[in-house]
Amino acid sequence: MKYETYKKLAGATLGKVKADLVFKNCKIVDVFTGEVVESCVAVKDGTILGVSKSYEGKKEIDLGGAYIAPGFIDAHLHLESTMVAPAELVATAAACGTTTFVVDPHEAANVSGADGINYILDQTENSDANVFVMMPSCVPATDIDDNGCMIAANDMYPFIGNPRILGLGEVMDDDAVINGNPRMFAKFALFEHQTIDGHAPFLPNKMLSAYKLAGVDTDHEASSFEYALEEARRGIHVHVREGSAAHNVDDIVRGLVRTGIDTDYFSFCTDDKHIEDILREGHIVYNVRRAVELGLDPFKAIKMATINTAKCYGLKQLGAIAPGYQADFVIFDNMKDFNVLDVYFKGKKIDKEANVKVKKCPSALKHTVNISKVKASDFALPIDNSTTHVIGMEPKQIVTSDLTEHFSKTENFVPHDGYLKIAAVERHHNSGKIGVAVTKGYGIQGGAIASSVSHDSHNIIVIGDNDEDIAIAVNEIARVQGGYTVVQNGKVYETLPLPVMGLMTDVHFEEVNEKLKVMKEKAYEMGVSKDFDPFITLSFMALTVIPELRVTPRGLYRVSDKGSGFIK
Amino acid sequence: MKYETYKKLAGATLGKVKADLVFKNCKIVDVFTGEVVESCVAVKDGTILGVSKSYEGKKEIDLGGAYIAPGFIDAHLHLESTMVAPAELVATAAACGTTTFVVDPHEAANVSGADGINYILDQTENSDANVFVMMPSCVPATDIDDNGCMIAANDMYPFIGNPRILGLGEVMDDDAVINGNPRMFAKFALFEHQTIDGHAPFLPNKMLSAYKLAGVDTDHEASSFEYALEEARRGIHVHVREGSAAHNVDDIVRGLVRTGIDTDYFSFCTDDKHIEDILREGHIVYNVRRAVELGLDPFKAIKMATINTAKCYGLKQLGAIAPGYQADFVIFDNMKDFNVLDVYFKGKKIDKEANVKVKKCPSALKHTVNISKVKASDFALPIDNSTTHVIGMEPKQIVTSDLTEHFSKTENFVPHDGYLKIAAVERHHNSGKIGVAVTKGYGIQGGAIASSVSHDSHNIIVIGDNDEDIAIAVNEIARVQGGYTVVQNGKVYETLPLPVMGLMTDVHFEEVNEKLKVMKEKAYEMGVSKDFDPFITLSFMALTVIPELRVTPRGLYRVSDKGSGFIK
Repeated sequence: MKYETYKKLAGATLGKVKADLVFKNCKIVDVFTGEVVESCVAVKDGTILGVSKSYEGKKEIDLGGAYIAPGFIDAHLHLESTMVAPAELVATAAACGTTTFVVDPHEAANVSGADGINYILDQTENSDANVFVMMPSCVPATDIDDNGCMIAANDMYPFIGNPRILGLGEVMDDDAVINGNPRMFAKFALFEHQTIDGHAPFLPNKMLSAYKLAGVDTDHEASSFEYALEEARRGIHVHVREGSAAHNVDDIVRGLVRTGIDTDYFSFCTDDKHIEDILREGHIVYNVRRAVELGLDPFKAIKMATINTAKCYGLKQLGAIAPGYQADFVIFDNMKDFNVLDVYFKGKKIDKEANVKVKKCPSALKHTVNISKVKASDFALPIDNSTTHVIGMEPKQIVTSDLTEHFSKTENFVPHDGYLKIAAVERHHNSGKIGVAVTKGYGIQGGAIASSVSHDSHNIIVIGDNDEDIAIAVNEIARVQGGYTVVQNGKVYETLPLPVMGLMTDVHFEEVNEKLKVMKEKAYEMGVSKDFDPFITLSFMALTVIPELRVTPRGLYRVSDKGSGFIK
Repeated sequence: MKYETYKKLAGATLGKVKADLVFKNCKIVDVFTGEVVESCVAVKDGTILGVSKSYEGKKEIDLGGAYIAPGFIDAHLHLESTMVAPAELVATAAACGTTTFVVDPHEAANVSGADGINYILDQTENSDANVFVMMPSCVPATDIDDNGCMIAANDMYPFIGNPRILGLGEVMDDDAVINGNPRMFAKFALFEHQTIDGHAPFLPNKMLSAYKLAGVDTDHEASSFEYALEEARRGIHVHVREGSAAHNVDDIVRGLVRTGIDTDYFSFCTDDKHIEDILREGHIVYNVRRAVELGLDPFKAIKMATINTAKCYGLKQLGAIAPGYQADFVIFDNMKDFNVLDVYFKGKKIDKEANVKVKKCPSALKHTVNISKVKASDFALPIDNSTTHVIGMEPKQIVTSDLTEHFSKTENFVPHDGYLKIAAVERHHNSGKIGVAVTKGYGIQGGAIASSVSHDSHNIIVIGDNDEDIAIAVNEIARVQGGYTVVQNGKVYETLPLPVMGLMTDVHFEEVNEKLKVMKEKAYEMGVSKDFDPFITLSFMALTVIPELRVTPRGLYRVSDKGSGFIK
């Protein structure tokens, strides 16, 4: 601790003067020893001074025997994918007990590079929460992507030493790691003394060892206990994910309970959790509650939400209730239901009803859709006599299948019998690149849906049953500079603008939600299968790292063929 | 991992080429999950590649079902106090399974400053073990000490960034911490991102909180479970000590077993363990074995000897068997007796019979006793009519009591009836300072014993029943430039030279031990109480941080009076 800080805190710590705030009559969850200690907690200047029944405070709060635990930590999440303003998501989750966020802004980075990362840092700087950032490692995701900006090791230098940057963000390009790509290792070298997050859902035994050997410290993609165990045995810290889309707590925690293995190398994360889900069931506290419901020891669960994660990211002042730790607390009624009564950040109670002030977005980040006007004929797709590969959209999944069909030879494929057109329009550099393909399973009739949220390069992705509506939808996205749109019979039905990098809104989330609800209903009415979220599922159809077929601005791409996967 | 290193290791990790070495048929102690995994361990270039039954090696070692655990770590020890050459002690302990040492060279620093620290670094550099150093924080121990060198924060700069320096060594001056001494905090600031070792045997509740708040991370002085628990609750990492003098494992581990609290913040250390004890019962493996004997879960015990400590000191590549970790192993027969079969350092088997090459000591470090010849009259101690304070030496302890006696007025006190003379002679700067006092309990008759090992300033300490023999003993220490000597009836009986800073030998330990045995026998024959080690107990009689009376070159000192404690 710095001399000046200690001098300010010493008197109250030693009990010579009163602390700013003392929590009396509390059950303290001690994450070091795994005990509940009945005592009082003294706080000054946002720092915990100590635990003792004899502390007195200028202000005293009687917790009436409630539990007080360290504020929870989300080990890995993206803010952009929730579409709402970063500060708003953080505030909503903080009110549920998550006081620390380890954020990977790789969507923003794919659109706007360093400016995108700085936007996330800036927007969350004065939040009532600790928001840390992992430097996006895979921008673009692969060499064949057309994204907005590239971030090489050199581009990361300005961020080195920033105390809010904790390391390198999820390394999705496992090939580059395992095959020893020097550009990837240049990034690893920059963060060798910090934490390197992984993303390794499918690696077999020795490849997983190589991935760890190279320097990867964590992974949040384990969806089965067996895989999580393989990771933990290698010293890969497993972030057990429970978000809006991925639900991994049940399988992994059941395994933890069944085997009784140590949980030191396990933490909790959400990855992506939408604001309405947070409001409904909570944030990291939901992972904790569910884990305990499944039989996990409550101390283990709380440690997975606090000290384990703090240690994983070298956050020496977070995750515990002890002298010198930051006074972030979650207060709850019992160690079973975990009903959150109050949350404190730096010793101040979080006001759940407070309005979040969303900072103004720099103008450049609101002008990121850079295309010339398109016309229906830009989406022509000639069919020859050979086999046509069709993107098979699978119910409730983002993986796709490689369907082969025989269509009649034509200058321009006409959607029919559930076969639709899907296209990716490069939108960052006005290169004019448009890739068109056939897809099946989505189900829209008499219109088109388009989005500028399209992982990971965030070009415009559009799907429809006729070229005219497809062109109208793309032009509408350009007009509003990013968002979602639904077009029906030659007319824009409704558009949700997401002007911040084409990914996020800068208005309050209620407005977004209202419009989104109407648009989703319309999409289903137009025939979109209920097995999909019309916009979220669509947003993954250009993602070149998840099997199997994807459409990109360069054309149809088979993921398993890697760099050579373009299909003529 | 560096690109070049990964490239060298990747092929074997992926199983494309053979590893250098594969341990087959082993029970791997997995410190991440707390399991025993039956598999094989592959190694190349001193690094663990991975664990898999299908690995093949250029060399394969069948362990026949034996256990393989990460090499043990001693969380805190001093090499100087064992008197043998550092490399020899390290080699002896390594052969017992301790492959990593976190060393505090504060004795060497008190005599020779940075040169003393560099000596320890240099002597252990090519050991078959990882030897790390903590920067001594209290040199001198207090402001009233006359030691050889002072190490202020400025003097520590040259060591910052050295990968073998892990942080700040045991902060004995708890007053300086708790009262916010800016010079102490300047040292803390230098190591704020590393580990700061504590030394806090006696701090009550709020003072212990303040000590932790200031930034202290560890302590190895806890001798009771209750105190250790108070420390762990504050996030102070407790090093459970079992050495030649201090035996804390029993009490602390009994408490751990009784309460079942988490042991994440507990490690093992020896602090000071003599080579003959190491040879008899082992080193850190003894702590492990004894803890398991007392009922501690063997995985917890092994973690306290491996990964817990590695994490405490930020040693990312040590303490586990997983890809990228250093190939340091201890192999034993079962998880109860822990009979060590073999030890590997960086994938190479440690040869227990190998001769240790002791590097030559720089000449300056062998000439550190700098005094003019003394004579009997230098030890005259006038007694007036008032009370005389006498250092009461307590059986089997290093604390002393403050006895008050009434002696007849005299120009020079004459030892009688068990009352002896004890003196401290400043030996670093030839200042001529000699402090003389009366002591009781030691028991020598007809001679004197002197030593240049005298914590922490390492002046010459001498005790005897007549001034002539006292002077002879001091002059003998100066003649050999440091060591132990026994003088009887005007003649030197025997001297053990410890020429390296007056603390250590540079010959092999057998020679030391042989001579020491003879000298101890003589001391007991001359009347020294069997309740004391004649030399070790004596070496603490000038230590101004342990209660109650001490003799220093500036005179008799009462520890509880702090800086103002000199007694006229």
